[in-house]
Amino acid sequence: MPVSTDELIGPTAGSAGHPNPLANLEPHLDALRATGAQFYQRGWSVGTSSNYSVVLRTDPLELVVTASGKDKGNLSRDDFVRVAADGRPTAPNQPKSSAETMLHVVVAAERPAGAILHTHSPWATELSQLYFDEGGIEFEGYEMLKGLEGIKTHQRRFRFEIFDNTQDIPHLAEQVRRRLTDAESPLEYGFLIRGHGLYTWGRDVAEARRHVEILEFLLECKARRIQLTGQR
Amino acid sequence: MPVSTDELIGPTAGSAGHPNPLANLEPHLDALRATGAQFYQRGWSVGTSSNYSVVLRTDPLELVVTASGKDKGNLSRDDFVRVAADGRPTAPNQPKSSAETMLHVVVAAERPAGAILHTHSPWATELSQLYFDEGGIEFEGYEMLKGLEGIKTHQRRFRFEIFDNTQDIPHLAEQVRRRLTDAESPLEYGFLIRGHGLYTWGRDVAEARRHVEILEFLLECKARRIQLTGQR
Amino acid sequence: MPVSTDELIGPTAGSAGHPNPLANLEPHLDALRATGAQFYQRGWSVGTSSNYSVVLRTDPLELVVTASGKDKGNLSRDDFVRVAADGRPTAPNQPKSSAETMLHVVVAAERPAGAILHTHSPWATELSQLYFDEGGIEFEGYEMLKGLEGIKTHQRRFRFEIFDNTQDIPHLAEQVRRRLTDAESPLEYGFLIRGHGLYTWGRDVAEARRHVEILEFLLECKARRIQLTGQR
Amino acid sequence: MPVSTDELIGPTAGSAGHPNPLANLEPHLDALRATGAQFYQRGWSVGTSSNYSVVLRTDPLELVVTASGKDKGNLSRDDFVRVAADGRPTAPNQPKSSAETMLHVVVAAERPAGAILHTHSPWATELSQLYFDEGGIEFEGYEMLKGLEGIKTHQRRFRFEIFDNTQDIPHLAEQVRRRLTDAESPLEYGFLIRGHGLYTWGRDVAEARRHVEILEFLLECKARRIQLTGQR
Repeated sequence: MPVSTDELIGPTAGSAGHPNPLANLEPHLDALRATGAQFYQRGWSVGTSSNYSVVLRTDPLELVVTASGKDKGNLSRDDFVRVAADGRPTAPNQPKSSAETMLHVVVAAERPAGAILHTHSPWATELSQLYFDEGGIEFEGYEMLKGLEGIKTHQRRFRFEIFDNTQDIPHLAEQVRRRLTDAESPLEYGFLIRGHGLYTWGRDVAEARRHVEILEFLLECKARRIQLTGQR
Repeated sequence: MPVSTDELIGPTAGSAGHPNPLANLEPHLDALRATGAQFYQRGWSVGTSSNYSVVLRTDPLELVVTASGKDKGNLSRDDFVRVAADGRPTAPNQPKSSAETMLHVVVAAERPAGAILHTHSPWATELSQLYFDEGGIEFEGYEMLKGLEGIKTHQRRFRFEIFDNTQDIPHLAEQVRRRLTDAESPLEYGFLIRGHGLYTWGRDVAEARRHVEILEFLLECKARRIQLTGQR
Repeated sequence: MPVSTDELIGPTAGSAGHPNPLANLEPHLDALRATGAQFYQRGWSVGTSSNYSVVLRTDPLELVVTASGKDKGNLSRDDFVRVAADGRPTAPNQPKSSAETMLHVVVAAERPAGAILHTHSPWATELSQLYFDEGGIEFEGYEMLKGLEGIKTHQRRFRFEIFDNTQDIPHLAEQVRRRLTDAESPLEYGFLIRGHGLYTWGRDVAEARRHVEILEFLLECKARRIQLTGQR
Repeated sequence: MPVSTDELIGPTAGSAGHPNPLANLEPHLDALRATGAQFYQRGWSVGTSSNYSVVLRTDPLELVVTASGKDKGNLSRDDFVRVAADGRPTAPNQPKSSAETMLHVVVAAERPAGAILHTHSPWATELSQLYFDEGGIEFEGYEMLKGLEGIKTHQRRFRFEIFDNTQDIPHLAEQVRRRLTDAESPLEYGFLIRGHGLYTWGRDVAEARRHVEILEFLLECKARRIQLTGQR
C-alpha cells in the first residue's frame, strides 16, 4: 500500500545541498533487500538479474526501484532509484534505474499495487519457452492457488500469461497495459516474459513476495509433473 | 507429549486486564518457529502455506496452532492461537486460526500426539495428484522407514494414504477421523491431501519434525525413482 | 589419523566420581557436529539418519560415535559414545550408540582411518536400489575422482560396491570385512547399502568429509546423466 | 581490473625476515573467500574442487591463486599462493598452487581479466560430456545472456566451447590460448572442460562471479529443457 507523501519528503538533506532522494525510505529499501537476499539464495535472482520496486505515491506516480546491474543477493541502501511515471529519476545524481522500469510503472498505474517484484528463475525461463505458443500456463486443483489474494478455492483456474521477450521495453509495457486494462478478461496476479522470468505484485512487499513464492511454486510443480508423467 | 495444565495457566496477565493467552508457551512457540524457519528454507512451507500445532492438554482438548496467513519462514511469538476441540479460540482478542485447525483437532483427539505438523512441498503436491486414484503411495525396502516411531525394519510396508482436497474442512476432518479410528487397519503416521500437502504428528515437536523429514524424504525418493526408471 | 592416547585420557572427572568419557574430545566432537550441520542442510542426514565417528586409538581399538537417534543438524557435545572393538561403550552411563556401530568398527580395524562417515541421501538410496543387481556403480572419466585420496587421473575406474540391506548388522559387518580384506581386489574408498546410504572414511574428519562430498557428487552426476539420456 | 603494483608491494615483513607474500592482498583474498563460500553452498565447488584467482599485475604477470586441495567453503587467508607467468610461486615458503594454475595464467595473459574463476558443478560435468562430440553448447533466446559483459540482446548467440579433459595441463593451456587468440572467432566469456567444469573471468571478482552465476544458470536451463522435452 503506498505510504503517505508526508512520510517520504522529510527534512533530510545531503551535505552538498542536494537532499538524499532515498532519505526516510529505509523500511521499504530494507524490505526489498531482505527479499533479494532470499530470492538470490533460492536461485531466482542470480547474476544481477531481477528487479524490485515499492510504490511511493500514485498521484503523481512515484516508485523506488532497484538500480541497474546490482547483485540482488547483497543489495545496499544505495542500490535504488526514485523514478516517476516516465521511468526517469525524480532527483539528480541517482544511479541508472533498471532497464525494465517501465514494466513496474505500468503495473503501478493500473493496479492498486504497493510493491512489484520481478524474478528470473530457471523454471520461469524454461516453462515460458515451452508454453509460449499456447500464450500461457493454466493451473487448477492446487491448494496453493488460495495464497493468491482473493482466491478462495483450489478449484479456481488461473492462467499465467506469457509475453514475448523483446529489448523494446516501452512496446512490451504497452502490451502489458492493454492486458491489464482489458474489459473482458484482464490479466491477473502476474505475467511471464518468454525466456526471461515473471512479474507479480501485491499491496505491500510481503504480499508481493508471497505471490512470487506461490507463482514459483506452481511453476515448479508443473515442471515436476511433466518430468514424472511426460505430459503437460 | 502434552505439558501439564499447571504450567500453562500461569499468573501472567496483560495490562488491559486480559491475560495473554500465549503466556508461558514460549518453549512450544519457539520450537514451532524454528521448525517453520527450517521447513521454509527447504521449500516445504512457502507462500504462507502450512500450519503447525502443539497439544496443550487433552481433557478438555486445547492446542496452540499457527494463525492464518503467516510467513512460516519468519514466525513471531504472536503468530499463534489457542483453540479448543471445536477449533475456536479459547480466549478473546486472538488472531484467526488456520482454516485447517479441525484437522489438527481430530489428530489430537485420536492419537497420543504432542505436536502436529502440516507441510506443503512440491513433491507432496504432485505425488498426491499422481497416486490419487490408487488412494495412497506404498513404501517398502527403505531403511528410512525405521525413523517412523515404532518401525523396526526396512521390510515393513507403509501406505501413505491420500484424501481428496476440499474447502469443506469439517467434512475432511470427519473422513480423517474415520480412518484414524478404523478398527481393522487404522491410518498411521500421517496422510496426504491431494494437491495440497501432508500431515503428520509425534509425541513432541522434535518427533513430529522427524516424521515430516522422513515422509518428505520418502516422497522425494519415490519421485526420483520415477524420474530414473519411468516406473512407479 | 588417530590422536595419541595421552591426549585423550586426561585428568578431567565428573562430579559424581565418574570421569566424563567425552572429556578432551571436544575438537573431534565439534568437527563431527559441523559436518552434521552441513550434511543435514544438504539433505544427506535428515530424519536423525546417518552416523559419524572418529577413531581414538587402534590398539586396543576405540572410537567415538554418534549416539542413536540424534538430530544430525543440531548435534550437541553429549550426543556421542565411546565404544570398543565389540561396539560396546567403554564407560558407564553413556547413551546407546548407533545401531550400525559395528560397521564403523570394521572399517577402523581394516583401514588406516581416522574418521568414518555414513550418509543417507536420496540419490544414495535410489541408485543403490537401481544398481543392486549389478553389485555396484562404476565411475570413469570424472575429474572429481581425483579428490579420492590417491587417485591421480580422471581415467581411473572406481567401482562403488553395494551391499544388501539387513537389520543383522554383525552379518553385514562381516561381509564388509571380507571385501575390505580381499586379497585380489579389496573394496576401496567406501560402499553403499541398498536403499540405505553410503559409508566412507579418511585419515581425519576433513578427508572423510571430502570423500562424502565426492561420492555424493558422483552419484548426483550419475543420476542426472540417466535423467538426461535415459541410459545408465 | 589489476590493482596497482604500489599497493601490492608494501613494507609488511614476516618475523623471520621473509616478507609475507600475501600482505596487503586481504581485500582480494576476502572476495575470493566469500565467493568460495557461496559456490560451495550451491554445490559448485564441493570436495575441494575448483580454483579461483585475482590478477595482481600484468607486466610482468602475477596472480594470486587458491592453493591446492583446500576446502572452498571455508578458505582461510593462508590458502593462497602468488604465482608468475610460469605458474610458479614468486616467493619462498608458499603452499603448492592449484594443478590448473596455467589455465589461469593463459586467461590472464590473453584477456583483460582481473579475476578468473573455475567451478565444478554437476551440470557442467554432465553437459560437457553430453555435448562433447559437438564441441560446444549453444545458447540463444535467453534474457540472462545479457548479463555477460557486452551482450545487449537475448537474440545474441553464445557458444560455450568444450575442451577434452587431460592431466597434461600445459597442453590444455596451449589449446585454450590458441582459441583465445584465434583471429576469426576467438573464444569468449569462458569454456568447459569435459567431465570437469567451467572457467570464466571478469574485470574484477564481482564480474567474474556474475559470469559464473550466468553460465551455471544457462547450463541449468539447458539441462531442465532436456528433462522436460527429451530434446537438446
